[in-house]
Amino acid sequence: MIIRNKPALMAGALSLFCSVSPAMVSAAWEALPEQPPIPADNPQNEAKIELGKALYFDPRFSEHGTLSCNSCHNVMAGGDDNRPNSIGMHDARGGRSAPTVWNAAFYSTQFWDGRAATLEDQAKGPVVNPIEMGMESLDDAMGRLMKIDGYIPMFQAAFPGAENPVSADNAAKAVAAFERTLITPNSPYDRYVNGDEVALTAQQVQGMETFAELGCTACHSGPNFSGPALPIGTGFFQKFPTYAGSNYETKYSLTDDTGRHDATGVEADKHMWRVPTLRNIAMTAPYFHNGAVPTLDEAVRVMAKTQLDKDLSDEQAANLVAFLNGLTGEFPQIAMPRLPGTPNMSVIPPVDPHMAANPHK
Amino acid sequence: MIIRNKPALMAGALSLFCSVSPAMVSAAWEALPEQPPIPADNPQNEAKIELGKALYFDPRFSEHGTLSCNSCHNVMAGGDDNRPNSIGMHDARGGRSAPTVWNAAFYSTQFWDGRAATLEDQAKGPVVNPIEMGMESLDDAMGRLMKIDGYIPMFQAAFPGAENPVSADNAAKAVAAFERTLITPNSPYDRYVNGDEVALTAQQVQGMETFAELGCTACHSGPNFSGPALPIGTGFFQKFPTYAGSNYETKYSLTDDTGRHDATGVEADKHMWRVPTLRNIAMTAPYFHNGAVPTLDEAVRVMAKTQLDKDLSDEQAANLVAFLNGLTGEFPQIAMPRLPGTPNMSVIPPVDPHMAANPHK
Repeated sequence: MIIRNKPALMAGALSLFCSVSPAMVSAAWEALPEQPPIPADNPQNEAKIELGKALYFDPRFSEHGTLSCNSCHNVMAGGDDNRPNSIGMHDARGGRSAPTVWNAAFYSTQFWDGRAATLEDQAKGPVVNPIEMGMESLDDAMGRLMKIDGYIPMFQAAFPGAENPVSADNAAKAVAAFERTLITPNSPYDRYVNGDEVALTAQQVQGMETFAELGCTACHSGPNFSGPALPIGTGFFQKFPTYAGSNYETKYSLTDDTGRHDATGVEADKHMWRVPTLRNIAMTAPYFHNGAVPTLDEAVRVMAKTQLDKDLSDEQAANLVAFLNGLTGEFPQIAMPRLPGTPNMSVIPPVDPHMAANPHK
Repeated sequence: MIIRNKPALMAGALSLFCSVSPAMVSAAWEALPEQPPIPADNPQNEAKIELGKALYFDPRFSEHGTLSCNSCHNVMAGGDDNRPNSIGMHDARGGRSAPTVWNAAFYSTQFWDGRAATLEDQAKGPVVNPIEMGMESLDDAMGRLMKIDGYIPMFQAAFPGAENPVSADNAAKAVAAFERTLITPNSPYDRYVNGDEVALTAQQVQGMETFAELGCTACHSGPNFSGPALPIGTGFFQKFPTYAGSNYETKYSLTDDTGRHDATGVEADKHMWRVPTLRNIAMTAPYFHNGAVPTLDEAVRVMAKTQLDKDLSDEQAANLVAFLNGLTGEFPQIAMPRLPGTPNMSVIPPVDPHMAANPHK
């Protein structure tokens, strides 16, 4: 039996009706809130969300006009690109796997290494990353945006009363506002913790108990399974691998990237990573920061070994995978944005030395 | 004054109330039908359209899982990518500019060179073109599709009673069915020819008259401005340039690509091209088969010179551009598809030798 959504009752009630390991006591099962935290300086409004959605899907803010935020964080799917790494301008590959945008609004820091405090800060990164969208600068991106007349009234409506509504900061705010609508409630797990006892299968409930008993909840806690709710900018990091020297470490090159240390230069941050959400985890293979682990079955074994020093039985692994599939939520229906046009011309520079021999198009 | 939508009246009525050039007599101004031709062997149904939409937006049918039909034929915009050419797998460039998918259903052949008779045939091309989506074969693409369980019931619903509903042919049929919904009626031009006299500005009406008087309507006729309605597979082709030797020919490399000849090998097809629609032309810069002409203003000058041996005045060019902007239609609201997932794994092969040095993602 699983204690559902009643943390206050747990300590006193546990011995009465279930056997439970100490690790399970920390498991306060919580459903996903319908709204993520909204920063005071960026309140939601419909016009802002619409603007953010258009910007999110607009490929014109990439060097070649080919990649938008959605290219690697596909909201029509699990919010990522199901690739080990993403492909940017000039066929460049990143070293890290695109994290899902779904429920990213519940994190207290952004990126695998937490180097951005907010969704607003995060939104500015990929646009100017040479191996992602590859714009020279945010000014360069805004230069393109200013040529797209239809965006101007959208910024004015999104930021009413602002003296200079059209700015990179406001573009980032709008994208963040859109991302705060990308929430997936009502997963089988959520329905279960809200009282629907048949929302999870018996195997999934078994997996849920295993998840708590093994100690997965030590890090993957809270309604987003990404750690406790912390003030924005704090970040909830853990060392990965915690238990060094496993075969997985070599097989999947788990320590090639030093994680948060790469961003901060601080020795204590070596191999520290933001604890990622497990929501919709079944939809976002391949796994981990480098996308080196192809299946969820293998991923839970890697986690158990490297973080808890435990070898899972096949049954435990299967039950955990079943439970994690119960974290796939309801994806809201989204109307496609219309991207404002630039009549009679294109804002994408035509100069391009790479002409293939094959003329077929 | 322009004769609107009453071709039967034109010959007799012309001399009564307008001065008109002979070329104008052939201009039977027609609004865009709300439905394109639907082939008897591929009737529309809602399930098929939904399936086709999902396939159209699904990047998993490209080698690296990064490009979908929509990547180059963006229905959130003018139905193309506003690039001179598109970028495929391995950063490959095509030699031709992506044509718009909007109203493509009104053509009697597909591709710039008409090498596909139908939208169904066309849909299979880019998937296996090595410089586009780059799949090894349609079988390879279908191999991926068969691993995506959620697609199976979608095919069954789209092709009820079919013995083998899941096939490349049916995938192409579904994509074509979706594309037949991509129609943009009610442009200012359409409203004008349907009787709304103020739908076009005075300048646009002047441009419309110039368009007819110059003889543009000789090729850009019919409701789609792409020539007469012909049986599917026929194609309406014209030579470009018709008048050889202009400066534009050299400046924009107009004859480097031999057009339909490249597909057929037939000498008479040299520099023959399908007459493209002018609907939403303001939204699809840069222009022509090689995307070499950056603006619509320049494009109308190139056309007048190369096809009609005429040099436009600045006023004529401006009026034509104004008229062509009146062909931008109403784009239907589209709900984003949900792409069926593959729980616990990805169908995109992880093997990828191109790892960039920069690990930031």
